[in-house]
This record gives sequence, C-alpha cells and structure tokens, in this order.
Amino acid sequence: MTELLSWAEGPTKSAIVDFVDRVTTDGPDFVAPEARVAVFDNDGTLWCEKPAYIQLDFLVRRLAEQAAADPALAATQPYQAAAAGDLAWFGDAVTKHYNGDDSALKILAGGILSAYAGMSVEDHADQIKAFFAKAQHPTLGRPYTACSYLPMVELLRYLETNGFTNYIVSGGGRDFMRPVTASMYGVPPERVIGSSVGLEFADGHLRTTAQPEFLDDGPVKPVRIWGRTGRRPIFAAGNSNGDIEMMEYTTAGRWPSMALLIHHDDTDREFAYTAGAERVMQRAAENSWMVASMRADWSRVFDA
Amino acid sequence: MTELLSWAEGPTKSAIVDFVDRVTTDGPDFVAPEARVAVFDNDGTLWCEKPAYIQLDFLVRRLAEQAAADPALAATQPYQAAAAGDLAWFGDAVTKHYNGDDSALKILAGGILSAYAGMSVEDHADQIKAFFAKAQHPTLGRPYTACSYLPMVELLRYLETNGFTNYIVSGGGRDFMRPVTASMYGVPPERVIGSSVGLEFADGHLRTTAQPEFLDDGPVKPVRIWGRTGRRPIFAAGNSNGDIEMMEYTTAGRWPSMALLIHHDDTDREFAYTAGAERVMQRAAENSWMVASMRADWSRVFDA
Repeated sequence: MTELLSWAEGPTKSAIVDFVDRVTTDGPDFVAPEARVAVFDNDGTLWCEKPAYIQLDFLVRRLAEQAAADPALAATQPYQAAAAGDLAWFGDAVTKHYNGDDSALKILAGGILSAYAGMSVEDHADQIKAFFAKAQHPTLGRPYTACSYLPMVELLRYLETNGFTNYIVSGGGRDFMRPVTASMYGVPPERVIGSSVGLEFADGHLRTTAQPEFLDDGPVKPVRIWGRTGRRPIFAAGNSNGDIEMMEYTTAGRWPSMALLIHHDDTDREFAYTAGAERVMQRAAENSWMVASMRADWSRVFDA
Repeated sequence: MTELLSWAEGPTKSAIVDFVDRVTTDGPDFVAPEARVAVFDNDGTLWCEKPAYIQLDFLVRRLAEQAAADPALAATQPYQAAAAGDLAWFGDAVTKHYNGDDSALKILAGGILSAYAGMSVEDHADQIKAFFAKAQHPTLGRPYTACSYLPMVELLRYLETNGFTNYIVSGGGRDFMRPVTASMYGVPPERVIGSSVGLEFADGHLRTTAQPEFLDDGPVKPVRIWGRTGRRPIFAAGNSNGDIEMMEYTTAGRWPSMALLIHHDDTDREFAYTAGAERVMQRAAENSWMVASMRADWSRVFDA
C-alpha cells in the first residue's frame, strides 16, 4: 500500500506528490533521508475523534469499574456519572470550562489523572490492549481499531517508502496510543509523542502516578518534537487549533516543507465540524497550508 | 567494525557474545529485534569524563565569553572564575555541595542554566559543533571527538549488527551530545536521551530557556527511557551510581538481559577512580552484573 489510492485526483493529492518528489530528487530542494521527518496529530487527523475522543471512552469505562469496586467512590463525581453512563456530565464539564467555570473540569481531571495511579506501565498497556480488542465506535459500526482514515494510512506508507520517518504528535495519551500505533499505522512506540502523567521507578518497575507530566498540545508540540527527535520536521498534518504551532514550526525551517490540514466536512461518511479548528483554518488560509477536504479529496474514508 | 577486536579474550567478552547469541537465536531466550533495546550512559561509559566532564569545559568557555562581553558580569561568579581559568573554583563548588554547603553550586547552576538562554536550538548546536571541531582533551593529547572508548564503539556496532537499537541515556546535556553522537557512535539525535533545560516556542522557532527541565540521572533514567521509547531495555552499560536504576530496570524484565559496568582502573591509558561508583560496584557484585575492567578487558582504549 504505497500508493495514494484513496486520494481523489486533484490539487491536494498533486501537492503531496509534488512535495515528496521535490525533496527526494537531486536538486536544490533535496532533503537527506535522515532529515525527512513527518509529524502527524492523531485525534481527528489519523483516527476519528467524534462523537468523543476514543481515550475518553476508555477512561469512562475505567471510572465505572472503579465505582463498581468502591461504593464510597461511586457516590462522587466523576465516578457517579461514569457508572450511570451519563456522558453528558463529561461534555458539560468541558462546556462549563469554556464558560469560565472550572469546577467540574477539575473534578474530572482528578479522576482521569488518578485512574491508573500505582499500576505498572506494562499492566496499563495490557488494559489498553484489552479495550481495543473489543471496543466499538458508538455510531460508525466498526471497532475503534478500524477507525483510522485509510487515506492517511496510505500517506504514512507513501512517506515511509520515500525515506521519511513518521512520528505521531498528539494531545492524546502517549501510553494510550502506543499499544495500537504499530498495528494501525506502522508507527512503533518510540515514535509516539503525546500527553502523559508522570511515572515513578521503584523495585525495578515503572508505575503510573497521578501527577500530570506533559500536555502535548499547542506550543508544547514543537518543544516535545525537538526533545524527542532533535530535528525540525519537514511535513506536518493536523486538524485542530492545537496543531498550529507544530505546523508553524515545520514550515519555518530552512528546508522545503509542507503542512496539511484535515478538514472534517463529510457528514455522510464521518462527521462535519469546525469547532476547535477555527483558528487553524484561518492560519491555513493565511499561510497557504494545504487543506484536505474529507468529502472532496478522499475517495474512501475507512478501510473495509 | 562489527567484531569486538579491542576486547581481550576472557569472561567479559565471552559473556557479551553469549548474551547476544542467546537473544538472537531461536529458542526460549530469543528476543524479537524490535525489543532488542540497548542503553548506554555516556560520560565515563562511552567517552572520557576525567579530569572534568567535557561539557564543563564547553560551559566554562562560554562563561568566559560572557564575562569578556560584559564587565559587570565579569566581576561576579561563576564568570570571574571562568575568565581567570580558575577551574578549582568549579571543583570546590561541587566539594562544598558534598559537605553540605550549596551556596557556590547554586551560583554555578544559575550560570550554567542561563549560559544559552534565548538562543535558538540550531544556533546552540552550531556552537557545540564549533567547540568539538577544535577542543582538545587537556591531558590525553587528542581531540575530544577522539576520546570515545574504542571497545565501546565496537560494542555499539556489534549490537547494531545483531538487530539491537542503541540509545544513549546520559546525565549530560541531551542537546550538547546530539551534534556529535552520530559521527562518534553512530547514534542519531532521536536516540539521545539526556538532561535538558526547557525550550520555548515563538515565531516559528525553539529557543533555550534558563529553566531546568530534566536531570537525567538515577531513577529519572528509567522514567525517561520509557517516555522516549515505550520499551524496557535488555542491555544496559554504565559506570557510576547514577546508572544503578537504569541497570535495575533493564535486568528486572521478563526477557533475558545484561548489565555491564565499566570499571576505571587504568592509570596508564586513561584514569583510575571509583569515586561516584561506590554503590554501583556494590550492586554489581550483589546482582552479578558484569564488570569490565578497562585495564584487563580492553586491549585498546582509544582509536588511533
């Protein structure tokens, strides 16, 4: 699968192919293979993020488990909402935050941060694998592991075939993504950059703490890209305001570069929304970043 | 250079070869290539750390430059000591620290942390390249770039040839090592883990700040190994107390593993010292970690 078969013929596909041709062909725009670094946001760029982040589904199930195991906990939030399947409570916490009231968000963050506290990183990974082994997307009628966008998986392969090294750079959990990125995207764990809680080392093992470490979003994305790779990417793909700085960083270097914005405008096959992407859409227009319309540029959205 | 030519025949070399044979041969001890992760401390393990850390030489030169550019600064420490070439002041700061007096160490740390504040990461890398292009070791009569240990470079190549992926995991500066690790060790920047100051992103570029981010030593080493790779190593090499946890982490997994401790006991060809390695020597004896005697196990120490 090294062809962009699920990309419709048109200016977006041509721009990608032209860019890759330029940097891989001897001449003034040639970029050495070791400098061909590509970075991809995950939620909404490589896999579906609606109606809710996949990781939120995972966490709500965990909170419900914790509530079932501890009646005292079950009487408090966010465990009560999780046990009752009251997903609106979680959405309201975010809405209240945007309206200036952080009270529910703080309660939610405390629950999320402590959800795996004390568990070894290996056991945590096993829980994530068990989740992905059976969890289904609530409306698309497919497992979450089949919710990656086929054109983007083809793009990952296409870049790789052309000597690029792909990294995932997501606001989602680093250790949440790692157990599935190799099979879903061909991206191994050492090339997954994401948010994380702190870890602590004792008795030969690493365990999850309840302390936040990184929130890998916005200006933190370029900082973590450099921290992890020591390189400035030449290709970046994203879909939301949190990807602006990563795309700026990628396109401000001395080499040829490309930024690609995924626009969710396909109600029939996926979802249509611009909430959370208002500023990046504007920046794309100002900076001539390429915009991929899911509706127009993708002949297929998901694999069979 | 895929043979361990500079290792003397004996139990240490045999143990390395046997371990690599076991994990690469079909059978109960076979480890898949993607899980063959090897981690190496740098100062005193891959390159010479005496009479002073190479990075300290780099930093003192920078402090002297800053003193020359700013007479007000030159009247204060650590700039005064740097400008006067008073290296004893730097040693005393550390000695005082071990005697319970942190006053000089705090002054030193402030100078070190702010040495490159505001500089872009690319310009910082250029300064490091310029330093390594000409700086000489003060007593060994060779450039710093020729101060890597030949047997360890051979070991890196030997592991790589056998499907391992090598990482450097050092208490030294991540961005200080990166410009030379590819040419000196064949380890690219994305596989260099080390201490760092924070970075900030603005106007498309990353700049160094004066805020510490990681001190990659002791229990932080396994935390950062997981953070960067999502894997537990099966091979670790170190030489000081700061490597204990990395070696514990490596040897506490479910796979076959090996920990190798470099013992500096060669006054003639390098240096002989155990200061800073007292606890790790004891742990090596308790845990049957392999100890490489520079004097007995290495037929050569440096390349020509």
